[in-house]
Amino acid sequence: MLDLTNNPLSAAFATVCVLLLLKAQILAAATAATRGKLKKFINEEDARWLGGEYVNPDDDRVQRIFRAHRNDLENLLPFFAGGALYLASGASVAVGIVYFSIFLFARYGHTYAYLKRKARLRRDAFTAGWLVNMVMSLHAASAILIKTVA
Amino acid sequence: MLDLTNNPLSAAFATVCVLLLLKAQILAAATAATRGKLKKFINEEDARWLGGEYVNPDDDRVQRIFRAHRNDLENLLPFFAGGALYLASGASVAVGIVYFSIFLFARYGHTYAYLKRKARLRRDAFTAGWLVNMVMSLHAASAILIKTVA
Amino acid sequence: MLDLTNNPLSAAFATVCVLLLLKAQILAAATAATRGKLKKFINEEDARWLGGEYVNPDDDRVQRIFRAHRNDLENLLPFFAGGALYLASGASVAVGIVYFSIFLFARYGHTYAYLKRKARLRRDAFTAGWLVNMVMSLHAASAILIKTVA
Repeated sequence: MLDLTNNPLSAAFATVCVLLLLKAQILAAATAATRGKLKKFINEEDARWLGGEYVNPDDDRVQRIFRAHRNDLENLLPFFAGGALYLASGASVAVGIVYFSIFLFARYGHTYAYLKRKARLRRDAFTAGWLVNMVMSLHAASAILIKTVA
Repeated sequence: MLDLTNNPLSAAFATVCVLLLLKAQILAAATAATRGKLKKFINEEDARWLGGEYVNPDDDRVQRIFRAHRNDLENLLPFFAGGALYLASGASVAVGIVYFSIFLFARYGHTYAYLKRKARLRRDAFTAGWLVNMVMSLHAASAILIKTVA
Repeated sequence: MLDLTNNPLSAAFATVCVLLLLKAQILAAATAATRGKLKKFINEEDARWLGGEYVNPDDDRVQRIFRAHRNDLENLLPFFAGGALYLASGASVAVGIVYFSIFLFARYGHTYAYLKRKARLRRDAFTAGWLVNMVMSLHAASAILIKTVA
């Protein structure tokens, strides 16, 4: 059986993944909770059930949280796949920890900036996370190919 | 090479993942098929090609299937990542099977409820799946961290 | 520690994953870049900051890239999970390489067709990728179940 418990990079990856998942989960819940608080729902049956208004598209305030969530998932998918490949490539532990740390801060920063309407920070945080995904994936693929050929 | 074939939890995880993937795939196809049946397309070239109407946004009936699909993917991503970490953490097989089973039923229930406009069941099914993702991820991360430190 | 470097199928999977991730990353950046070029933004703070217009929904040209990206991610998630399960199932290397190759070409073809408004190619490329996801997942699950029972 696969065992991730015997090396520090795996533990770091697991921790970062879970911290990012928890934030994405909170955003998912916040979208629904904000709809409930505003009593504006995008499904008729919810408006009927909870005594609110049926709106489509979502209220602006809900759309903002939703966009933060969507952007998060768009970046988490490449990170989970690329990070797992990096782990499996056997490449440098120290560099891996740098990748994972930057990504973690970048994505928390991005969500903060999106919700607080800080456009410049949001742009920079997105870019940092995007660059980690690009560089880490290429690093992992080249490490795997070199070892396979060697 | 990684081998998931020698323990029951891995087999359970693989089965659950595939059952969930198949449902998500069916939803993806249903979105497209419903556009075709209604002859209302969100790309001009499709409307021209298939002799239908160009609409943007999608027809309400398509949007509902699409939202069920989107909600599914938003929950499958944390489940795949969190479930893989749980598997790799070496934590309890019995508890893992409980997590996977609840999640499987919750997500099939959610899709059924969304398409049948059952608001309360949809809310409860979403919440059950959401809670599994939260608890399982934290369980996996703590199991990995404890073993790494020990 | 998990090691993917000692067999050709793992190396193929890693390479295909990274090539698909890079394309999805480029689409994410293209959505943002096109908003900037058109000076039409879906967040007020961006319009203020960068001296453009605030629009919601996005401009048609941005929506097209965004839809190509969204469709990509909807298909990459099942591919990453199903491909990892296939790798872990120990099933045929040759068949695996066929799956991965078809999927790689299908998804590059889909993005090209979406951006170039080629409806028929887009439909065929989507279908090919969709079928790989279905067949590969079922193949992986059955291989894992058979070995676990045996």
